Amino acid sequence: MSRSRRRHGVQATATQPADAYRAAGVDIDAGNRAVALLSQSVASAGTPHVLSAPGGFGGMYSAAGLGADAVLVASTDGVGTKAVLAGRHGRWRGIGVDLVNHCIGDIAVHGARPLFFLDYIAMAALEPEVVAEVVAGVADACRAAGCALLGGETAEMPGTYVPGAVDVVGTIVGAAPKDRLLPRPETIRPGDALVGLASSGPHTNGYSLIRHLLDGSPGAAADTGLIDALLEPHRSYLPAVTGFSEAGIRPKALAHITGGGILDNLPRVLPAHLGARVDLGAWPVPQLFATLVDWGGLDDSEAFRVWNMGIGLVAVVEASDADALAGQGSSVIGTVIDIADAGGRVTLEGSWR
Amino acid sequence: MSRSRRRHGVQATATQPADAYRAAGVDIDAGNRAVALLSQSVASAGTPHVLSAPGGFGGMYSAAGLGADAVLVASTDGVGTKAVLAGRHGRWRGIGVDLVNHCIGDIAVHGARPLFFLDYIAMAALEPEVVAEVVAGVADACRAAGCALLGGETAEMPGTYVPGAVDVVGTIVGAAPKDRLLPRPETIRPGDALVGLASSGPHTNGYSLIRHLLDGSPGAAADTGLIDALLEPHRSYLPAVTGFSEAGIRPKALAHITGGGILDNLPRVLPAHLGARVDLGAWPVPQLFATLVDWGGLDDSEAFRVWNMGIGLVAVVEASDADALAGQGSSVIGTVIDIADAGGRVTLEGSWR
Repeated sequence: MSRSRRRHGVQATATQPADAYRAAGVDIDAGNRAVALLSQSVASAGTPHVLSAPGGFGGMYSAAGLGADAVLVASTDGVGTKAVLAGRHGRWRGIGVDLVNHCIGDIAVHGARPLFFLDYIAMAALEPEVVAEVVAGVADACRAAGCALLGGETAEMPGTYVPGAVDVVGTIVGAAPKDRLLPRPETIRPGDALVGLASSGPHTNGYSLIRHLLDGSPGAAADTGLIDALLEPHRSYLPAVTGFSEAGIRPKALAHITGGGILDNLPRVLPAHLGARVDLGAWPVPQLFATLVDWGGLDDSEAFRVWNMGIGLVAVVEASDADALAGQGSSVIGTVIDIADAGGRVTLEGSWR
Repeated sequence: MSRSRRRHGVQATATQPADAYRAAGVDIDAGNRAVALLSQSVASAGTPHVLSAPGGFGGMYSAAGLGADAVLVASTDGVGTKAVLAGRHGRWRGIGVDLVNHCIGDIAVHGARPLFFLDYIAMAALEPEVVAEVVAGVADACRAAGCALLGGETAEMPGTYVPGAVDVVGTIVGAAPKDRLLPRPETIRPGDALVGLASSGPHTNGYSLIRHLLDGSPGAAADTGLIDALLEPHRSYLPAVTGFSEAGIRPKALAHITGGGILDNLPRVLPAHLGARVDLGAWPVPQLFATLVDWGGLDDSEAFRVWNMGIGLVAVVEASDADALAGQGSSVIGTVIDIADAGGRVTLEGSWR
């Protein structure tokens, strides 16, 4: 893999493609055009730590300065079927942002800051403009996070992908000092506060059901406001998490609210003997979610598992730290409680509308 | 992402799926079964550097001991349409090996040893046994390389993937001391030797054309020997590259022969003013490639671009080092020459049969 040579069923070259290649359904010229279009995005998202020039088999990132006790934290993820919805509306740049910000969330909750990112984009017949738009979005989000876009791969695979469909996969590598890793479940106590940070929308989960609901609602696809809201890119929680440090607050745990919603993600950071009580009236759930819940006829136990319902990240903190964190875009949404008090692990109380 | 919670269109949970989920075409129980099947593979492929337990949002790898001048080298890659051929014959474990060994090659040629690996597996309808087999192969290859399988993701995306099709994407992160990074193009001179290391077969490139040819040859799919040869997993070049060090030989450059073959990959490591002359009679080209070339009616300029033709990695070394490296599975295959002598960058001379 390398930035300047994107993979194809048959590798892109500068020569005229043989009849055999075309017969096998792979367009080398399109591959070259894709590479040309994305190179500017890539060049814009390097950082001083990047040693490699495009064209290598792998990307190189200097680990000097990480610190003797550094821990690398890595995650790989796709954006799921949000890409299908984006494709229907020709909105690819946001998908690149989604990819990066979802990955940032997955390592930020471990206390790690991003170092570098690699992307993989695949489809049946290569559409260079789609690839370029996705990579532009990836580069946008990487730049915003001080994260180097180290490398990527584009694959053209007729027979694997439904025509017109695209999958994007990202891998992020970050670092944290060992003594700053999260979660710290051993420090969590009943009475600790749960501070929820607002999401920007469904982020990258629950889109299979969203599309199912859209398909069942004639006219929905023409509702521009609705589509805009559904395609809003995943928020980056890097600034907020960095802000905790700067406010002198050390969370005991952070939960990224992804697939499984608050119900399944919050328990991942709690010790086995503790649960959580979430007050559903404690934050403004965006109208979008009310619309989706009504369309789907979901009850709370389903809705708060499929979608984030307006909360993209939950911080578990000392109750005394909660007020310092609550503010624009964040709310105290609940409390850590003993497991005996929690029906299952997370109890939802009250009403969100 | 986390090893124990694989992504789905709707996240896998332990509760009964709502009717809405099933209606959207996502099977949560299958997801849970996939996780159970693969957990043993994952547990077998940890290393002492891995800090995280399955279930986290990201995987954690201790960077202690890397060295103050370490450079991280990373690559992301798929296996291309070899997965389609493997799927037709129910041969998934080798695909996991392919994924890892291709990535190992991409960083080994930069002088890096593997640290950790993450995988992504996606398909239309989740088949837990397929996922488990792929991950078993990934774990096999990681163990063999002393590489930690740090995390992964499984995505179930009806509407994106052709039913029955599977895509697998791997990301590898390795490390090298800064003064051991490759290539070192500034050290390469006319007269330097090219040592080719044998491949185990087509590895992971050229399979779109291979499938096209198979489709055009009735009875080929029933030729077990042929299918076995085509599905032979990508060789790991880690032992060979490590062996260079142990023999006290420092290559000037290493080229991983992937998409684009010898013709396009060798120039990637040569300085602009130099080319290469490759003697086509210098190594035994496996019969498999003769069969494929004849089927496709390819001339040498096409064959040596689509397929590796029996050479999976080329080392550029001092001529005086060449004999020490040539041996079982490796041959001196050519010489570095001035660009004026090279028609294009790589000149193929002689005949391979």
